Amino acid sequence: MSKKGKLDGIFRPKSVAVIGASSRKKSLGWEILNNLILSGFNGKLFPVNPKADHIHSIKAYSSILDVKDKVDLAVIAIPANGVLKVVNDCGKKGVKGLVIITAGFREMGGAGILLEEKLMKLVRKYNMRMVGPNCMGVINTDENVKLNASFAGVRPEPGKIGFLSQSGALGESILNHAKNLGIGISKFVSMGNKPDISGNDLLEEWEHDENVKVILMYLESFGNPKRFTKIAKQVSRYKPIIAVKAGRTVAGARATISHTGALAGVDVATGALFAQCGVIRVTSIEEMFDVSKAFLNQPVPKNGKVAILSNAGGPAIMATDACVRLGLEVPELSKETQAKLKKVLPIEAAVANPVDIIATGGPERYEAALNVLIKDKELGSIITVFIPPLTIDAPAVARVIAKANKRTKKTILSVFMAKDEAEEGIQILKNNNVPVYLFPESAAKALSAMVRRRLWLDKPEGKIKRFNPNIDRVKKIIKAARREKRRALTLQESFEVLQSYGIKSLKPLSATDVEEALSNAKKIGYPVVLKLDSIKASHKSDIGGVMLDLRSDQEVKEAFKKIKLKARKAKIAWSDCTILVQEYISEGIETILGVQQNPSFGPLMMFGLGGVHVEVLKDVSFGITPLSDVAAKDMVRYIRGYPMLKGVRGEKAIDENALVDSLQRLSKFVSDFEEIAEMDINPFLLRPKPKSSLALDARILLTEL
Amino acid sequence: MSKKGKLDGIFRPKSVAVIGASSRKKSLGWEILNNLILSGFNGKLFPVNPKADHIHSIKAYSSILDVKDKVDLAVIAIPANGVLKVVNDCGKKGVKGLVIITAGFREMGGAGILLEEKLMKLVRKYNMRMVGPNCMGVINTDENVKLNASFAGVRPEPGKIGFLSQSGALGESILNHAKNLGIGISKFVSMGNKPDISGNDLLEEWEHDENVKVILMYLESFGNPKRFTKIAKQVSRYKPIIAVKAGRTVAGARATISHTGALAGVDVATGALFAQCGVIRVTSIEEMFDVSKAFLNQPVPKNGKVAILSNAGGPAIMATDACVRLGLEVPELSKETQAKLKKVLPIEAAVANPVDIIATGGPERYEAALNVLIKDKELGSIITVFIPPLTIDAPAVARVIAKANKRTKKTILSVFMAKDEAEEGIQILKNNNVPVYLFPESAAKALSAMVRRRLWLDKPEGKIKRFNPNIDRVKKIIKAARREKRRALTLQESFEVLQSYGIKSLKPLSATDVEEALSNAKKIGYPVVLKLDSIKASHKSDIGGVMLDLRSDQEVKEAFKKIKLKARKAKIAWSDCTILVQEYISEGIETILGVQQNPSFGPLMMFGLGGVHVEVLKDVSFGITPLSDVAAKDMVRYIRGYPMLKGVRGEKAIDENALVDSLQRLSKFVSDFEEIAEMDINPFLLRPKPKSSLALDARILLTEL
Repeated sequence: MSKKGKLDGIFRPKSVAVIGASSRKKSLGWEILNNLILSGFNGKLFPVNPKADHIHSIKAYSSILDVKDKVDLAVIAIPANGVLKVVNDCGKKGVKGLVIITAGFREMGGAGILLEEKLMKLVRKYNMRMVGPNCMGVINTDENVKLNASFAGVRPEPGKIGFLSQSGALGESILNHAKNLGIGISKFVSMGNKPDISGNDLLEEWEHDENVKVILMYLESFGNPKRFTKIAKQVSRYKPIIAVKAGRTVAGARATISHTGALAGVDVATGALFAQCGVIRVTSIEEMFDVSKAFLNQPVPKNGKVAILSNAGGPAIMATDACVRLGLEVPELSKETQAKLKKVLPIEAAVANPVDIIATGGPERYEAALNVLIKDKELGSIITVFIPPLTIDAPAVARVIAKANKRTKKTILSVFMAKDEAEEGIQILKNNNVPVYLFPESAAKALSAMVRRRLWLDKPEGKIKRFNPNIDRVKKIIKAARREKRRALTLQESFEVLQSYGIKSLKPLSATDVEEALSNAKKIGYPVVLKLDSIKASHKSDIGGVMLDLRSDQEVKEAFKKIKLKARKAKIAWSDCTILVQEYISEGIETILGVQQNPSFGPLMMFGLGGVHVEVLKDVSFGITPLSDVAAKDMVRYIRGYPMLKGVRGEKAIDENALVDSLQRLSKFVSDFEEIAEMDINPFLLRPKPKSSLALDARILLTEL
Repeated sequence: MSKKGKLDGIFRPKSVAVIGASSRKKSLGWEILNNLILSGFNGKLFPVNPKADHIHSIKAYSSILDVKDKVDLAVIAIPANGVLKVVNDCGKKGVKGLVIITAGFREMGGAGILLEEKLMKLVRKYNMRMVGPNCMGVINTDENVKLNASFAGVRPEPGKIGFLSQSGALGESILNHAKNLGIGISKFVSMGNKPDISGNDLLEEWEHDENVKVILMYLESFGNPKRFTKIAKQVSRYKPIIAVKAGRTVAGARATISHTGALAGVDVATGALFAQCGVIRVTSIEEMFDVSKAFLNQPVPKNGKVAILSNAGGPAIMATDACVRLGLEVPELSKETQAKLKKVLPIEAAVANPVDIIATGGPERYEAALNVLIKDKELGSIITVFIPPLTIDAPAVARVIAKANKRTKKTILSVFMAKDEAEEGIQILKNNNVPVYLFPESAAKALSAMVRRRLWLDKPEGKIKRFNPNIDRVKKIIKAARREKRRALTLQESFEVLQSYGIKSLKPLSATDVEEALSNAKKIGYPVVLKLDSIKASHKSDIGGVMLDLRSDQEVKEAFKKIKLKARKAKIAWSDCTILVQEYISEGIETILGVQQNPSFGPLMMFGLGGVHVEVLKDVSFGITPLSDVAAKDMVRYIRGYPMLKGVRGEKAIDENALVDSLQRLSKFVSDFEEIAEMDINPFLLRPKPKSSLALDARILLTEL
C-alpha cells in the first residue's frame, strides 16, 4: 500500500457518494456509478438522487446528509446551478474529497467565474480538496482501492503510470490508447478547471507514490509556473515526467484561449521551463507511449552510445538514421568487439555497427552477438531489430533477447517489424520487460528521451549564485524615471543599472556640445563612438544616431553635427538629447542578452548572437528566472552558433565564464525589480581576455503604470 | 487491362516456370510455388526440379527445356553455382522474364561480381529482362494476372500502389504493414542487386500503368542518378512518388556499404535530387503509409491553408500545432465564415480555427460546420478530429463527414482518436475514401506531404538556360595545369575561368615586387587588397596571405612585406608566388558558391552565406547539375538566412537574378568540364545594384590524373 498522502480523500476513499447518480444509461450519473461498480471499488457506494429509490441495485439517498455512514469522497454530476448546495451539504457531512464533473464554471466566463469562486470558498470553508469542476473524473487502479470515479468509456488496467490531463476528452483517448498497447495506469486525473487541485499538487502527491513509476502529463496551460518548476525539478530527480504541452504554435495558442479560458503559455517559455526542470517533452500521444514503455521497463542508459543489432540491412540502416537524427551516437564498435563478433558471426555479417547478422541469422546468432555486445563497456544501450523471415523461429529470437536483457544493466529496446506473425515473440518480450516497437524510429525516439534523462540526471543541480548589487542606486534611477513618467531609461541610466549589478559596460561620457565631445574623446582616446542618448529615441541606430569608429577630432566634429541633424529630422528636441562619447571596440563577438516579461512565466531571459543571428536566423535560447549557473551555461551552449564562441578558424575562445556570470546577474536584476517590462543588452561584446567582455549598449523599459 | 508495357515478361506472363521448386515446406522453392498457387495465378505453372515427379500436385520437369508449352517467366531459386546453366536454358527456351531469387552474386564481392557479370551477359544475349538476383521476388495483384512470384510471407490485397524495394526483408515488412492497415498493392518488386531491371525501369513502366496510382520506393542507393532525375521528374507530374531513402546519416551509410555493396549516396545529394524531381521524401514506413493513404483517396489540395474541425479542444490544439510545425497554415477564418459558423454552432464553440464544436457536438454540428467550411474558398483542406464521447453516435459522425467529402473538391482528412469503439465509423470513412488517422500528427504529416506536392505541381518546369561560354579559353587553362601536373588553378586562372563563363569577378593585377604592386594599386585606386597567389597555398587566408582594406602606398608596402614573410614561414618558394592586387569592396553580402564532385551524383552544387553561416551554422543548400532556373532559385531561397538577401533593417535587397544566373553558369561550367573535382567561389559578393555582384576569390581543383 502506498503511504498516506495529502490527497487520500480523493485517491483512497473508503466510501464514495455519487451525487447525481442516475439509472438512465449513457447519462453521466449512470456511467460514473457503473464505472465505480465495474472497477470493483474496495469500499461503500452511496448513490444520491432525490428522485430514485435505488440505482444499479444500490439503495439511493435523496441527499448526502441522509447517509448515515461516513462519506470520504463525493462525485458530483448534477447541473451547475445545484452544485453549491450539494457541496455545502458535503462540507457539513464531513466529506474530504470532491470530484466535480459538472461543467458551466470558469470556462464559460461571466457568471461561471463567479460561481467557481463561490465553489472554492465552500471548499476552503470545509477544508475539503477538489478535482474539477468541468472534468472527467479520477481513477486509481491500485489493488486495495480500485476507484474509477469517472465517466471514461475505457477502464484502464492496473499499472505504474500516473497520468494527469487538462483535457477530459484527450484523457479518454489516451486511456484508450494505453489499453490498446497493453499499458496499465495507476492513477488518472482529469483536472478540469483546477481551481483547487492542480497538476502541481498531483506531482507532489505522486513523488513518493510507489505505484507511480512514470508520470504523464497532458497540459494546455500552467497555473503557477514558479511552483511547477520547483516541484517538477524535485520530482524528476526520482521519476521521469513526460509531458505533452499543446498550444505550441500561435494558431494553437488561439485554440487554448477559447478552450480552457486559461492564458496561453508562450511556447518558448514552456520549452525553457521544461528543460530547466528535467521534464521530457514529447510532441504526440504516440511518442508519449513509445517513451513511457521504455521508462517503465528499462533502466536509463549510462550514455548515448547505442549498438544496433539486426537480421536485415534495411531496417538496420533506418534504425541508425533515426538514432543519429535524434542525437544518439551509433559508434563504430571497438576493434576488440568487432573481432569477437567476427568470431561468432558468418563472414557476410556486418560488425562495425549496425551489426547485421543477415537474413539467415536465427536465435543462435542473436544470442552470440548479444553476448558480445553486452560485454562492450562503451555502450549504454542496444536496439535489437528483427524482421521475421519464414525460416526463423521468432519466439526463440524473443527468448534469447529476453535472456540477454536479464543479464545486463544496459538498456535493451527491441523492434519486431511484424505484427500478427510475430505475436508470440512480442508477448515473450513484453512479459520479460523488453519494450517492443513495430518500427525502428519509435525505438530511437524512446531511447533518445532516455538519454536526455541521463543528461538531466548527470547534470549538477545548479546553484542560484548570490550577488551583492547596489540595489539602492537602481531604486533611485527607477524612481526618477517613474517621477518623470517615462518608461524608458536613458543609456547612461541603463549602464548605471548594469554596473550596479556588476555587469561590465562601457563608461560613456556625456556631452552637450562639440567642445565637450572633443574633450571627452581625448579623455577616452581614439577611436571613439558618438551616440545619441535620448528617452525619445529608443532605437537610435535606426534614426542614424550612432557613429562608429571615429578616429580624429575632425571626424568627431562631423559626427556630432550629423547626429544633431538626424535628431532634428526625427523631430526630437535637442533639449531632450545628450551625446555620449565612448570607446570604440571592434574586436569581439556581438551577442544579445535580453529579458521579456511573460504574463504567466515572469521574466523570460534570452541569449543569442547579435545582428542577423537573432533577427533572421532566430538562433536564440531562453531561460526562466531565477537562472542557476547550470541553466545559464545551458542557455549559452544551446544556440547553434555556439562553436563561434569556442573560436573558429584559429580564433581564440571568448570568456564563457564572464558570459554565464552576466546572465545570472541579469537574472538577479530582473528578479529584484518587477518594474522591468523588457530590456536588451545589445551588443554585449564577448572577448577572449578574462573579464574584458562588456555591454556596449543597453535599453531598459519599465512596465506601464 | 493496363496497356502493354515493356516489362510484360515480368509483370504479365501467361506461364511461369519455378526453377528450384521444392516440396519441402518452408524452403524458398516451396514458398514461391505456394504463393503462385494461392494467389490464383491466371496462367500455367511449371515446377522445375530434376529430383521430383510432381510438386504441390503439379507435374514437375527436370529442365525447363523439357516443358513443351511456351514459358514467359522463369523464377529461379536454386544455388548460385547452378544459375548460369539454367538461365542459359531459359534463354534457349525463349523465356522473356527472369526473377532470380538466388543470392551469392555481386553482394558477396570477389567471385560473386564475376558471376553476376556472366549472368548479365546471358540475359543480354537472349534479350531477356531480369529482376534480381538476390531478391524476394515480384508480385502483381491485378485482377487478370494475379502473379505472386515471391517468397513473401504476406500476400498483399489488390490495390493501387506500385512498390519497389531495394531490401527484401524490409519489403516484406512493408507488405505486412500495408495489409494490417487494409491498404492494397498493385505491384511489388524486390529489386535485389538490380544489374538489369532497376528502379528507373520500374518508374517508367508504372508511369502509364493505370493500376498504379501512387509509387512507393524504399531505396538504399542510386544506380544512375541522372536517369533517375529525368524519369522521376517526368513520372511525378502524373503520380506521386513517395520514397524512403535509408543511409541518410554517416553511421547509416556505413551499413549501406556492407549491405548491398553499392556506393553510399551522400544524403544531401539525395535530398537535392528528390527536391529537384518532385519525389516526396518520408523518414519512416509509418509516415510512408500515412502519406499514401491520403494520396490514394484524396485530391491534392489547392493550397496549404487548412481548417481544423474538432469536438474537443485538446486534440484541436495538437492538430494545429502539428500542422503549423510542418509548415501548413491554420489561418484565422474569414469574418464571413466565422459569422456563418456562429449561426450554426452554440455560443461556447470556437470558430476562429481550429473550430471546436465542443464535446456535446454530434453529427448535426459536424455537418453544419462542414457545410460552412467547404464553402470557404480560401481553404484548401479540412482535417476533422473526433474523440468519441459516450453520448455521440460515432457512425453518424462518420456518415456526415463522408457526405461532405462527396460534395467538395477540398482535401478531407479525418482523425478518429479511438480504435475499437469507433470501428464502425472508421470503416464508413474508409469505404468513402476519407483517410482516417488515429492521431492528429499523422494527418498533419500526410497533409503536409500533399501540400509539398501541390507546390511541386504548381512550379514551372524549369529551363536549362543556354550560355555561350568561351570554352576554348578554359580548355587552354586546364591543359596548362595538366601539363604542369598540378591540380590547383591559380587565382588568376580561376578568375579567367569564371569570366569565360560570364561570372563577374574582380580583375586583379599581379605583381612580383613592391614597385609593381604600388603601380597596380594606383591603377585600381585605393582601398585595395593584396593576396598571395600560389598553387602551393590553397588556403591563403589561413597562412595570412590576404591583407584587406589597404589605404595608402605605405600600407601596401608593409602588406607586401608581410605576405612575403608569411609565404616564407609557410615554406612556399617565392618563385612559386605572385602577389595580386585587387579592389577592396567592403559593402555587400558575402556568399559561397561551391561545387563538389560526387561519385554517384556527379557535380553537386552548394550555396550558402559566407563565413560562420557555412562553417558553423551549416546554413547551405544543394543542387544537382544541370541546374534549371527554377532549381537555382530554389537553392537561393532554401537557406535560413534568405531574408538577409531581401534586405533587413532597411537595407536594400541584393540582385537575386544575378545570383541565380551565376549559379546556372557555374552549373554549365562544371557540366562542361568533368575535370573539375571541386571549386569554391568564396566570397561571391552580392550587391543591390544590378550586375554589380561579383566573385572576390575563387579556388578550382582538378580531378586527380
